Amino acid sequence: MSQNLFIREMPNGMTLLGQPMEGVSSAAMTLLVPLGSAHDPAGLEGGASILCEWMFRGAGDMDSRRLNDALDELGAEHSECVLSEHLQFSSAQLGVNLHQVLRIYADIIRRPTLDDAAFEPCRELTLADLESLEDEPARKCSLLLAENFYPWPLGRSIYGSRESLCSASASTLRSHALGGMSPRGAIIAVAGNIDWPAFCAQTQDLFEDWRTPPQDPINVQPARRGCAFLKKDSSQVYISLAHKSVTVGHKLYYAARLAESVLSGGMSSRLMDELRDKRGLVYSVNSRYHSLKEHAGIFTTAGTTPQRAQQTLDVMIDVMARLGEGVTDEELARSKAQLKSFLIMQGESTSSRSAALAGDWYFLRRLRTLDELSSAVDSVTTDELVEYATQFPARDFTVVLVGPDELKLPRGARHAL
Amino acid sequence: MSQNLFIREMPNGMTLLGQPMEGVSSAAMTLLVPLGSAHDPAGLEGGASILCEWMFRGAGDMDSRRLNDALDELGAEHSECVLSEHLQFSSAQLGVNLHQVLRIYADIIRRPTLDDAAFEPCRELTLADLESLEDEPARKCSLLLAENFYPWPLGRSIYGSRESLCSASASTLRSHALGGMSPRGAIIAVAGNIDWPAFCAQTQDLFEDWRTPPQDPINVQPARRGCAFLKKDSSQVYISLAHKSVTVGHKLYYAARLAESVLSGGMSSRLMDELRDKRGLVYSVNSRYHSLKEHAGIFTTAGTTPQRAQQTLDVMIDVMARLGEGVTDEELARSKAQLKSFLIMQGESTSSRSAALAGDWYFLRRLRTLDELSSAVDSVTTDELVEYATQFPARDFTVVLVGPDELKLPRGARHAL
Repeated sequence: MSQNLFIREMPNGMTLLGQPMEGVSSAAMTLLVPLGSAHDPAGLEGGASILCEWMFRGAGDMDSRRLNDALDELGAEHSECVLSEHLQFSSAQLGVNLHQVLRIYADIIRRPTLDDAAFEPCRELTLADLESLEDEPARKCSLLLAENFYPWPLGRSIYGSRESLCSASASTLRSHALGGMSPRGAIIAVAGNIDWPAFCAQTQDLFEDWRTPPQDPINVQPARRGCAFLKKDSSQVYISLAHKSVTVGHKLYYAARLAESVLSGGMSSRLMDELRDKRGLVYSVNSRYHSLKEHAGIFTTAGTTPQRAQQTLDVMIDVMARLGEGVTDEELARSKAQLKSFLIMQGESTSSRSAALAGDWYFLRRLRTLDELSSAVDSVTTDELVEYATQFPARDFTVVLVGPDELKLPRGARHAL
Repeated sequence: MSQNLFIREMPNGMTLLGQPMEGVSSAAMTLLVPLGSAHDPAGLEGGASILCEWMFRGAGDMDSRRLNDALDELGAEHSECVLSEHLQFSSAQLGVNLHQVLRIYADIIRRPTLDDAAFEPCRELTLADLESLEDEPARKCSLLLAENFYPWPLGRSIYGSRESLCSASASTLRSHALGGMSPRGAIIAVAGNIDWPAFCAQTQDLFEDWRTPPQDPINVQPARRGCAFLKKDSSQVYISLAHKSVTVGHKLYYAARLAESVLSGGMSSRLMDELRDKRGLVYSVNSRYHSLKEHAGIFTTAGTTPQRAQQTLDVMIDVMARLGEGVTDEELARSKAQLKSFLIMQGESTSSRSAALAGDWYFLRRLRTLDELSSAVDSVTTDELVEYATQFPARDFTVVLVGPDELKLPRGARHAL
């Protein structure tokens, strides 16, 4: 497995990243533009989600039809995602088509048409997605949890609200977008069947005269935290909890990821064992690490029946709290094996690699090789894992519950309001 | 990309398939055991789903804990899936661990403990999954559509019913499982970092004395078809339609897949263009080919609001019906490019490859190389696509609707009951 990692920083603040991979025909691209949902101005919450749609309705000299035909003709499997601080554009295609796809993305990002006529359907689609959350309680629960857990507005729902979406106008969103999409902090990462020098030359050609000044920094306010209960007469109860963890650059980061794995990294993990196998309380339960640039958390979710909900919540919290009492050598060894195996297998996918490069640069301003990741995982001791669990204990939870009845949080679990 | 494909048929009826791939560390395994949901005896519907859980609660001399610890230690990312005619076991791990994982799967399949104590939690989990469908209308809609479209019981819901799950007993399911899991028709496919001769030697060693006689053939009855309406006071309406297509071995198979792509293969596809971009009726709509061994269909689904539901249904049917009027050279070229790009990129994943090998053998009793697939796609003409759309027209739909109000099916669309 080739592990040549390339970095090129452009004078306008954009960074190019690349990893050529042997034995593959595909080349995947991840493009981060620093204009995420947290940048949505007051009154325009959800604007980034509308924008993500709108940017594909014509760009450069292509109308919507021609733009989408062109991407389809190139076999580009693309997806767009609104993140807290970025719009993320991902596209996987054969390496031979990368340069043509890149040219289209330069138009989408630098010269989106954003015409009035296309605005309304994009707003409607975003509204429809917001409304569909009513039928997807698990997803709704997760969105609200991130919103309440992270400092405002960093975790804010990417859909805004019905009111903000309805009051958004084409002209306001257009000037926010065109004034806000800056090369400063933009990242474009490619992995797979790539020609790095050719990619750099083309990207510089397409983007070097991009000069939009950066956004004002986000005005960050304290998080809401607390416990939210959404009453719903459903047959299932959705429980979600978040508590603080370390960011990617922290010295206990790998201990945190191994703690996540001990709790939730497989069928033998503690949460699965205690909640599913021993007690049959839930069909699934999981604990996932998630990070923004300066804030991170462990997000733990479970779905169960109303009858089992209180016990499920109690056992979840108990299992997590007991991590600080220690882990066995076997648990740690198993978690290391799982995590390393996962990293190696993920490293075989061009899409995963391009996303990982972009993430590394954003979080760390450098790139990690597979060898570095692997040694870092290997070097974590049981003492470090306990140190992590003691310094970042599973308590002071931010909680979201969806179901017919409210639940009682154990003493010490509720975050002081 | 290596395209050496290996086949070894064992005297007991089991088939071994392999594809060594260069530049990867992982080895993925797909194991098909010919005992699917369609084999569930009357009164034991949903049994295969319980069984899939139960088989991981101890096997050989390992109890549940040791079995799951062992798989986690080996970094095996595994999943189980109940199909119509098979239980499908998938596991991806590093190639160096394949032989140990394989030994564990031999125990799971040939020597599952299936003890009484573990039965009840497995039944409970299956019941919980069945109940969770009430909060997932889109999934419920799809399950019912397959159930009504395919000849009974081939598309029957893998969860059975609350009644059948509650009345299932450990002893009945155990004897069904132990008497029914036969090597006759079993398939084990591996792809990636594999040593084919060593894999064959080990597999033969582990499985050659497996002699359970095959299941009786499934007693197939006519399909229910028709139009089912599930009243639900939801904010969304879920529309799903199925109509007949050709199976994988049919001479018009590739024309069918390209027709699927013209309708639904990207942002520029006809359904996306007409329903989403031009009319803003739906957030997503898609048309997917699905096949059993002797029956296949095109399954088309959309989610929308109650106000837009009737128009959505009308336009969906109209767009599909017009395929027989012809496709342009550009549409066909675009669909070919997309499909070939997808096939090549999918071919880079060891998991996708092992699943594709197993599927090829089951459907065709031979393996297709990427070159064969690619030429077959290339050779389809617009005339063949129209021939397909004329011989297998989009009408006589099996329909499932979930939402507050019933909808009116256009004339000719409803299947005669």
